[in-house]
Order: sequence, then C-alpha cells, then structure tokens
Amino acid sequence: MQENYEKLKALLLEVDDLTSALSILQWDQSTYMPPQGGASRGRQIATIGKLRHEKGTAPELGHLLDKLAPWAETFGYDSDEASLVRVARRDFDENTKIPAAFMGAFNNHQAETYEIWIKARPENNFKAVQAPLEKTLDFSRKMAQYFSNYEHIADPLIQMAEPGSKVSRILPVFEELKEGLVPLLKEIKARGLEKVDFPAGKYEEAKQLEFSRNVVKLFGFDFTRGRLDKTHHPFMTKFAWGDVRMTTRVYEDQVDNSLFSTMHEAGHALYELGCRPELDGTPLGTGASVGVHESQSRLWENQVGRSLGFWQHFYPELQARFPEQLKKFPLEKFYRAINWVEPSLIRVDADELTYNLHIVIRFELELELLEGKVSIAELPQVWRERYEKNLGVSSPDDRNGVMQDVHWYGGAIGGYFQGYSIGNILSAQFFEAAVKAHPEIPAQIGQGEFSTLRAWLQQNLHQHGRKFTADELVPKITGEAMTLKPYINYLKKKYLAPELT
Amino acid sequence: MQENYEKLKALLLEVDDLTSALSILQWDQSTYMPPQGGASRGRQIATIGKLRHEKGTAPELGHLLDKLAPWAETFGYDSDEASLVRVARRDFDENTKIPAAFMGAFNNHQAETYEIWIKARPENNFKAVQAPLEKTLDFSRKMAQYFSNYEHIADPLIQMAEPGSKVSRILPVFEELKEGLVPLLKEIKARGLEKVDFPAGKYEEAKQLEFSRNVVKLFGFDFTRGRLDKTHHPFMTKFAWGDVRMTTRVYEDQVDNSLFSTMHEAGHALYELGCRPELDGTPLGTGASVGVHESQSRLWENQVGRSLGFWQHFYPELQARFPEQLKKFPLEKFYRAINWVEPSLIRVDADELTYNLHIVIRFELELELLEGKVSIAELPQVWRERYEKNLGVSSPDDRNGVMQDVHWYGGAIGGYFQGYSIGNILSAQFFEAAVKAHPEIPAQIGQGEFSTLRAWLQQNLHQHGRKFTADELVPKITGEAMTLKPYINYLKKKYLAPELT
Repeated sequence: MQENYEKLKALLLEVDDLTSALSILQWDQSTYMPPQGGASRGRQIATIGKLRHEKGTAPELGHLLDKLAPWAETFGYDSDEASLVRVARRDFDENTKIPAAFMGAFNNHQAETYEIWIKARPENNFKAVQAPLEKTLDFSRKMAQYFSNYEHIADPLIQMAEPGSKVSRILPVFEELKEGLVPLLKEIKARGLEKVDFPAGKYEEAKQLEFSRNVVKLFGFDFTRGRLDKTHHPFMTKFAWGDVRMTTRVYEDQVDNSLFSTMHEAGHALYELGCRPELDGTPLGTGASVGVHESQSRLWENQVGRSLGFWQHFYPELQARFPEQLKKFPLEKFYRAINWVEPSLIRVDADELTYNLHIVIRFELELELLEGKVSIAELPQVWRERYEKNLGVSSPDDRNGVMQDVHWYGGAIGGYFQGYSIGNILSAQFFEAAVKAHPEIPAQIGQGEFSTLRAWLQQNLHQHGRKFTADELVPKITGEAMTLKPYINYLKKKYLAPELT
Repeated sequence: MQENYEKLKALLLEVDDLTSALSILQWDQSTYMPPQGGASRGRQIATIGKLRHEKGTAPELGHLLDKLAPWAETFGYDSDEASLVRVARRDFDENTKIPAAFMGAFNNHQAETYEIWIKARPENNFKAVQAPLEKTLDFSRKMAQYFSNYEHIADPLIQMAEPGSKVSRILPVFEELKEGLVPLLKEIKARGLEKVDFPAGKYEEAKQLEFSRNVVKLFGFDFTRGRLDKTHHPFMTKFAWGDVRMTTRVYEDQVDNSLFSTMHEAGHALYELGCRPELDGTPLGTGASVGVHESQSRLWENQVGRSLGFWQHFYPELQARFPEQLKKFPLEKFYRAINWVEPSLIRVDADELTYNLHIVIRFELELELLEGKVSIAELPQVWRERYEKNLGVSSPDDRNGVMQDVHWYGGAIGGYFQGYSIGNILSAQFFEAAVKAHPEIPAQIGQGEFSTLRAWLQQNLHQHGRKFTADELVPKITGEAMTLKPYINYLKKKYLAPELT
C-alpha cells in the first residue's frame, strides 16, 4: 500500500506541476508578456490545461484512490495520508463528473464572452452580451446538473469554491448580514459627516512600491520565497511553497490604492507561504476554500491595515515619503479617508462595510437566475432596482451597473461571489480568536510588530493547507461555527468610535 | 490527406506549446524567480519535458509522417508541406532513436555534474569533476551510438545542432581557419601597440539599458513582440512569433559588456522575429541551426556593432549619456578599445579574432575525447599544452583552464562548440552577400540606419525558418557553399586598417 501511495503522490505531483506551469504562463501574461504574445499564450495555456485535465482524470488515478481509501483512513482523519486521499478524491470526482468536451466548450464560450464584454462595457451595450450571457446561464445550469443530490442548483457551483457549503446555509447568514449592516450604515450616514479626501498630488510609483514592500515584509512576506510585480488587476498566485507571487497596480494620483491592494494580496500570500512544506506539490498544499482565503486577505487589509493602531505607527513613515502631499494632512484625517463609508455603484471601489451589500445583491441574483425567476433580459432592470433598494444608489447606465464585474462574463454564473463576504465574516472571527489567545496583538500592531498574529494564523490555519474544509476549520480555530457576531461587533466598534464619527 | 496533414499540424502544435511552456519556465527561472523557487522549478521543468518527449515520440506522429511523406513531396521541396513533413521526420527520428530512459538518466547526470562543477570551479578542484566527466563522456558516446552509419562518433552529436554537417567537413575548415588566423594574429601583435583601456567610472545601469534598448530598436527589434530583461547569463528565447525575449547582465564598471551582449542577443532575436508568421507553432518556426543562428548574433554584434561606421554615428550619443567618463575619450580610442586583440585564457572574454582559436581547441579536444585518444584524467594537462601552443598563453590553474566553460559540465561532450566558429564564418559570408546586393549598407550603418540590411536578411534568411539546412541555405543566399574567404578578408581589412594599427 505504501508503494501505491507513493505512486498516487507521483501522479498528483504531475498534475500539480502542470497546474504550476499554467499559473506561471498566466502570471507572465499579466505582468511581462509583450502585447503581441497574447494569441500564442492563450493557445499554450489551453494545451497545458487540456493535459492537466487528462492527467487529473486518468482512470489509474481513480483506481489508486479506490484502493488506498481504507488504508489511508487507518491513519486517522487528520493524518496527511487520509487527508490527501480524501481531498484528491473530491478533486477527482469533480473533474470526472464534468465531461472534458463540455468543459472545453464552456471555456471557449467564456473566452468569447469575455472578448465581447471587454468591448461592450465601455459602449454601455448590454444587448451585445445578452445572448452570450443567456448561453452562460445554460452552461452554468448544465454544469451543476452533472452533480446529483443537490438541494439547490447553485450548490454544486458553490461547492467548487467552498467545499461543504450550500445555499440553504449561506442565505440566512447573508440575511443576517444585511440586517446587521443596513441599520449600522443608516446610523453612520445619519451623522452627516463631510467626506475627507486625500490630498491631491503625484505619489511616485517607486516610493509607493517601496513603502508597500516594506509593510508586507513586516507582515512576514518572505521575499526569498516570492515577489511583488505590477499588473492591471492585482492577484496572488502560487507556483510552489518556495515561489508565491503577488501583483499590484499603481495609480500615481492615489496614495492608498496600491498599498491596500498589496496588503490584501499579502494576506493571500501569507496563507500559501504558511502551508506545511511537506504538503507542497500535493492537493493539500494550498488554501482551504475561496472564502477562507479571502478571510486572510481581508484580515491583513482591513483588520490590520485599516486600523488606527497600524497608522499610528506607519503614518509618520508615509508622511516622510510624501512630505509635500501629506505633511499638513494629519493622521486623524488620513484615518477617516481610508475608512470613509459611502454606498456607491462599483463593488471594487466600495468601502469595507457596504462592500458586502454589493456581494449580497450578486449572490441573490445568481440564485434567481439559476432558478429561472429572473431572466437575463430582465437583469439590467432588476440590478438597478436592487441597488436602489439595498444601497440607495441608482446607476445611470449598465456599464456601471450589471456590466461592471468580469465574473459572469468570463466565468460561470454562480459559485464565486459568496466567498468575498464569507471572507469578511471569517476575517473578524479569526482575528477575534487570535486576540483572545494573544491580547497583546492590537498593541503590537501599533508598534509595527506582526509576528505574534502571523505565527498564530500560521499555527492554527495556514499550516493545514487544504486538509480541512471551512466547516471543519472554523470551530477548530475559533471554538464555534461561522458566526456573524465578531464581524458586526468589529464594524460597530470601529465605525461608531469617536475617531470616525 | 489534407485532413491527415491538419492532424499532424495539431499534434506538432501541442509539442510546440509544451516547448514554449518549458521556455517560459526557464526564462522566468533566469530572470524573476525568487531564490527559493529553484527546487520546485526544476521539478516542473522535468515534468513538462517528459510530457513533451512523450508527445514528440508518439507512434501516431510517426504513422502520420509515414503516410504524409509522398503526398507532401508533390508540393515541391521548398513548399511548407514538404518542408514540414521533412523536418518533423528528422526531429521524430532523433527523438525516438534515443530511448527516453537513457535521456532521463543523462539529463539527471548533467544536472548533478553541473552542481558539482558550480562548487568545484571556484575551488579549482578538477578532481571533483573528473569522475562525473568520465561518465558524461560515456553517456555522450552512447548517445551517438544510438545513431548508425556515421563516419565519426561525434557526427550524430554535431548533427543535432547542425543538420547535415559532420567532422570530416568541419575539420578542414577549422584547419584553414587556424592557418588564416595565426599569421594575422602574429602580424597584429608584431606592431606592439599599447592596450587602450576604457575610462574607469560608474556607468549607471539604467543609462546603459536605455542606450542598448535604443540601439536594438533601431536594428529592428520590435518591443511589441519582445522584451529585454536582466539575468546572470545572457540568452535569447522564443515563446512564439509574437513573443521573443532577450536577456542581458549589466556591469556598472564596464561600458561595453552589456551593450555588445544585447546586440548579440538582438541578432538571435531578429532571426526568430523574421520567420514567416505562418510557420509559428510548427517545427519550421525557428532558426536553421546553431551555427546559422550564431551567424546572426555575430553579424549584428561584430560586423555591425564593432564597426567604425556604427560608432561614428553612435559614439556622440554614448558620450552624451556618460559625459563625465567619455567626454575626453575620443572615438578613435573607443574604437580601439572595443576591438583590442589579445590572446587570453577565457573564451567568453576573448576578442572577435582569437575567439575562434578557443573554439578550435575545444572542438579538437572533443573529437580526441570521443575517439579515446585523450582521457579525462589527461584533459587538464592537454588543455594547458594546447593553449600554450595555439594561443601562447598558459593557465595557472584549471579554474581558468579546462573548467571555465559550462558546456561539458552541464551537457554532452561534443556537438555544440563548432557552432560558434561556424557562426563567425557565416556572419562574414552573409554580410558580404548583403553588401554585394546593397552596396549602400555600410554607409547606412554609419547613419544609424539598418533597415536595408535587416530586410535583406529577413528576405533571404530569416523568413525560411528551419525549412532549409545550412548547406541548403548558404549557397542559396551567397552563391557558394560555406567559405572562409569573406571572414578572413573581413578580419584582415579591419584589423590591418590604420584605425587599428
């Protein structure tokens, strides 16, 4: 059996190497590839992707998993052996249930739709994407139908991102989230504060990057095991335990954008860097789910990076780098500027609090689309109504409405958005647990010292990689299942404090 | 048949995509990969390499080639169809003759030997590499023996780099090369000129790179289809017709090093960029051979980049970038400094002329090793004797002697070095033909204008990619087979001119 286990690991390593190669090709495409490299790169990515699918669905892999399951379980649920076989089986089932030909056709359709959207969005032309989007909805439904025994048609799609999760558990949480956020938002807006703007000026790219690099290095990002490069849409990607890359984009007229995006990606990166090195090259050597991953990026970006303590320590340094712009802009104002709450149209520009309302709108619409309660043709109108109802803002056009996010135009409808808010909720729950274990953490953050927090996260969450699902991890780490309380408490405590009111 | 041909192209495209993926992984490894990414990268490269070998030796590929050969030939030897089938067959035979297990073992041995050499070289410890090198010699002999019907055991190794070439044809050329060079070298040294050194100082990296980028852009390097990045050992690599990358290293105490290396790599790059786009993704979409490729890098580096006309145009600009260092250093001296001839120990630091004597020593030694006339144990001593005899310099140690070049320690013994001198010879032959067709080329170079030369090369050489062997190309382009005359004439004319004497 040990021999079969080694054979299994060798097969899985091959799949992992192909996945890493894909990631490298995509990273290069987003960072350094010259303009005319695009056509061939798309083809190269498709070829490697096809080979990875072949290797990941090889019958030999299935037979080995069958053979090894009883043996692996004898090591205990938490063991590397049992976890590896369990998670590899989950992947194998997911990969084999969806026929390769279907997946190929869907991927092609997604790529085509993306190209149409890229042109149609600036032209505010929803008509152009309507038919492709109807097809995407069909594809998404069919993809879900390859799985059986689901309560809701969105469940299989959700479970690809959040193993073990489902609509019937997310919906009440999101309902409660809305119930917590809406009155809080009202209370904040009722104060009628005047918006604080950052001082205008040129914030030189090199200085911004240097400051960001310094901050994430202090967070614990190890530059011998990773990099920070420039791109259009920031992301984090892992090639191996020893090679984890973050990207950012820099706007020289904005002091905050690149910095917070880098802290966000550093949160993702620390998760990947914190996995046990023994798990590298196996299906266990990455984060547990989209939502849990997002909890780490949000924790470092918001709980840490938007806290008053953090800036009490770092603001003088930032001022020293941009004296002309920031010397006369006091910490108090800066802190208000980075935490300004305002319902708005665009998700990616939203503040920490209203961000969730954007997510809830999308999640609910996805369910209604998949259920057939809302049609693609009605979508722009329904989108506008929801924004008016939930956020109190009305979009003058579709470009800044239903066409703003790439997700539906470059992927499936359903299965991804919920992770953003799950991430926000869990970020607070994890942070609260960390502070409970080490009450000195907030004071340390105020001294630019993050090692206690990072070590706690590494020890309790990161090291396990993908061994456990979110449902298994959260009680293990925090003593209870996912709960909204810490998040709502965090938001109330922060946004109703004198510094922000 | 057309259908089979399309099927063949699809299979070959898959091989090409894997080759490109490999190149991307290697490029990243040499440019941006963080220090701890190495172990996993080696593994990922090995996995993709294995898959490429599988795809490149698939029986289906062989059957299609068998079927298609007679059909393709009806289109005529020069047609895309006939050429594709002919060249793909050559690759297939080469790939299938060497068993995958042998190749894997040899590659592993090469990687191990490289690691030993990396440590042993600075310690001047030939003993440490002796046994591995003996094994490399064994491997190299065995690799050759997988091929049959060769005149000399080095021939199969040579033919991997130079299709159609062989020892019995190279040796007389190299003999003639020595006979031409040695008296010329004596004549130059007899003049007893004093060496001209570049002015000391700091030549800032950013300014060097800007100047180099500007020069190669004028050569015709299209930055929408490629990049220039930094690395330890400069190289050129192609991912596709639209993505060709050069690398360089910059020493801030040397004004010339990075510039000439960039011109050299640009010569390689222009060749790849000049292939007909229709050949992209096929075995025809790259250069004809190592030697022909090297002719292009040498042509732009030496015939163009080290010419007086070139510097009459560009030197004022270089002076303007480094006024402090170069203002009082006249063109006349600069031209002497970049063309200083001096027998020396290290190949990569050698001047344009004596460089060939380094190559001839290595090539002859490779033959004697493969023939069993010289043993690895004797190699350091024989190396010293040859350097004393052919170059008149004596190495105080092995570090700067037999251990100086990576080739034998990271590859096979035999098959590669000859390409460097073939490149030098052909660079002059091609340049002479270009000037014969367009006598205005030298004057244009003196005006920083390179489009006539580049267009001629593209039209006559680059566009064909790998359709023709060197033996087919050279007469087609120059009217005669490879000949030494143009090269020796070029060297005589240049080095005996008043500017250098």
